Amino acid sequence: MIYVSRHEHFNAAHKLYNSSWTKEKNEEVFGPCANENWHGHNFDLIVTVKGEPNQDTGFVVDLKKLSTLIRKEVIEVFDHKNLNLDVEVMRGKMASTENMAIEIWKILQSTLPNITSTARLHCVKLYETPRNFVEYFG
Amino acid sequence: MIYVSRHEHFNAAHKLYNSSWTKEKNEEVFGPCANENWHGHNFDLIVTVKGEPNQDTGFVVDLKKLSTLIRKEVIEVFDHKNLNLDVEVMRGKMASTENMAIEIWKILQSTLPNITSTARLHCVKLYETPRNFVEYFG
Amino acid sequence: MIYVSRHEHFNAAHKLYNSSWTKEKNEEVFGPCANENWHGHNFDLIVTVKGEPNQDTGFVVDLKKLSTLIRKEVIEVFDHKNLNLDVEVMRGKMASTENMAIEIWKILQSTLPNITSTARLHCVKLYETPRNFVEYFG
Amino acid sequence: MIYVSRHEHFNAAHKLYNSSWTKEKNEEVFGPCANENWHGHNFDLIVTVKGEPNQDTGFVVDLKKLSTLIRKEVIEVFDHKNLNLDVEVMRGKMASTENMAIEIWKILQSTLPNITSTARLHCVKLYETPRNFVEYFG
Amino acid sequence: MIYVSRHEHFNAAHKLYNSSWTKEKNEEVFGPCANENWHGHNFDLIVTVKGEPNQDTGFVVDLKKLSTLIRKEVIEVFDHKNLNLDVEVMRGKMASTENMAIEIWKILQSTLPNITSTARLHCVKLYETPRNFVEYFG
Amino acid sequence: MIYVSRHEHFNAAHKLYNSSWTKEKNEEVFGPCANENWHGHNFDLIVTVKGEPNQDTGFVVDLKKLSTLIRKEVIEVFDHKNLNLDVEVMRGKMASTENMAIEIWKILQSTLPNITSTARLHCVKLYETPRNFVEYFG
Repeated sequence: MIYVSRHEHFNAAHKLYNSSWTKEKNEEVFGPCANENWHGHNFDLIVTVKGEPNQDTGFVVDLKKLSTLIRKEVIEVFDHKNLNLDVEVMRGKMASTENMAIEIWKILQSTLPNITSTARLHCVKLYETPRNFVEYFG
Repeated sequence: MIYVSRHEHFNAAHKLYNSSWTKEKNEEVFGPCANENWHGHNFDLIVTVKGEPNQDTGFVVDLKKLSTLIRKEVIEVFDHKNLNLDVEVMRGKMASTENMAIEIWKILQSTLPNITSTARLHCVKLYETPRNFVEYFG
Repeated sequence: MIYVSRHEHFNAAHKLYNSSWTKEKNEEVFGPCANENWHGHNFDLIVTVKGEPNQDTGFVVDLKKLSTLIRKEVIEVFDHKNLNLDVEVMRGKMASTENMAIEIWKILQSTLPNITSTARLHCVKLYETPRNFVEYFG
Repeated sequence: MIYVSRHEHFNAAHKLYNSSWTKEKNEEVFGPCANENWHGHNFDLIVTVKGEPNQDTGFVVDLKKLSTLIRKEVIEVFDHKNLNLDVEVMRGKMASTENMAIEIWKILQSTLPNITSTARLHCVKLYETPRNFVEYFG
Repeated sequence: MIYVSRHEHFNAAHKLYNSSWTKEKNEEVFGPCANENWHGHNFDLIVTVKGEPNQDTGFVVDLKKLSTLIRKEVIEVFDHKNLNLDVEVMRGKMASTENMAIEIWKILQSTLPNITSTARLHCVKLYETPRNFVEYFG
Repeated sequence: MIYVSRHEHFNAAHKLYNSSWTKEKNEEVFGPCANENWHGHNFDLIVTVKGEPNQDTGFVVDLKKLSTLIRKEVIEVFDHKNLNLDVEVMRGKMASTENMAIEIWKILQSTLPNITSTARLHCVKLYETPRNFVEYFG
């Protein structure tokens, strides 16, 4: 078994704001992340799949195809968007990196079979800043 | 003459939108950056000052003081903010990295004398993404 | 289960020197790292905790709280210190990155419950240089 | 158990070309990577071993010895080479990062006992570019 | 005057080989870089242009247009190529990073006016490895 | 004129302590950097030379020779040393990054002619941490 990873990136705006709470409670819990006028990040996304290398190509998965898949199914959806307003899969959920990673996993889990019949999704790693990141293994 | 630099960072939302243009022209010129619901970035800021090292300290400028100055005068103003709505110095200007660098220069030019009587501001370098950055020398 | 990580850093001096050995044996085994006058490093520390995201916040753990905990309990203890002379938890142990990671794990294992009742410590990753690092999972 | 890692690097040329296929099929599958005149990369290699720290040294493994081993057994073999023409262990295999990682694992698996009787090989991580990398755990 | 930079990358094979010298002299001067079967690198290219920000856009130059220009005029020419065999502008020249930077400058100097009438080329910075790089200012 | 740069690194211990001051004044001015038991850093050093590329080699300077020179004349002197106690050229000077850059410049200015008769020293850039660095141009 070999683990193969591809690094992509996107930029987005969001705020951390629980609409069932008062403004004061949101500011107490989320601090400046609750700014009602939004803030934003450069997100770095690393997607890892696992499998056996194909004898003919030497590839677990064609990384150009994996890159194209991630760009079409994930980057198109999240890039230059407002995570609270523009992204269907985030609707009704807190716009945290944790929840983003879970939704990105779901998207890739259902679309990875479009480019490979043998490799399986292993990990979605998402950096919100160079110092804060999450990993989800399904 | 020695050049001394300090690296800080902040996160912010913005959009590139010229309000004297139609929505169509904005989308044509700025593409996804014109998204009316905003997007955002992790900005990396490198401030360079120049001067002679002080004989007693070996410092051109105390980098802890420079860091504190940048955080108080620049980061406080830009961090977790909407560059179009929340930042006074950007009002009426396009929220481009170029214009941000010029405004950051003005702030530091007028406040640097608070921490040093000998060192002078040399450069404001601002990364919008790891692949796009600007430099301003006044 | 989601894994959430926070990156912090500190600077310290140390030497690799086994006081039950001769100076010659120390130099033979540890080379320049045995320099009796010390050398030092910028250490990069990545702390990973794991848990389920909270429904109200979207967080496994509040990363600002995790950062504050690491700074108070670990960085305060190790930063700008001599690992052989100044750091209580390293006393009587070789000042290797391996032993530092174990001691940092112990500190965080006992103090993480102060900021979360659901997330658990998963990994302490410690870079001594960009090319040398260790990981400890308890 | 502690995991200890060392980062090395090398440069090499290769092409992705399956000689049992037509030129057209190679270009269709591998795109510009099939260029018959070769292309190349700066490879980054991270080798991880695991074990208990030695009481006398504080080390799982002496990282200078591990670095020397990797340089002698791996870097000497791959650095400034053509992976398709010059590297014996790659002969008859597709010059993919996956296959390189497997061969590097085999080399280190058989030579690591030369420098340690207690630590065991855990992972070979190989970056072909900063955005594409593979991991192999044996 | 503001300086605006865009970072792109490409991969290529080359060798350092002066055909008017003997094989022995090439190996003496260029060491492993003279390997007749080629080696290769991931090149990082940073292009800097300078000018005044446009009042309507806030831009010195549209960085999407600059990126497109670099990709079309430079990356297309150098990426996944053999610098000694496949790249017309390098013919008859040593395939050193210095000479590459000069040729990239010439290409951009003559094509930059296609995307801007006000900004001027300032610097071509080319990394052959993360530790070796050159800068050319025309 | 082309500018060619080589990146090297070393580790060292130091303290910022002016022996003509009281301990209290040192702690007031230098904070934790005045710790009498030392602290330390991974220093990153980038040396830039300038000149015309040689027609026969394509090189401004042979970067392997420049690397060897820096390692022999600078790294040997500073690496795994105590900057206050072990480094002759720093004696009697504050162990600041500014003063280190000046001394490294002097060393390279006098020894660069050993490897090149045409290239001249342009810049010594020294990172004390990834966020603090200085540049000296002579």
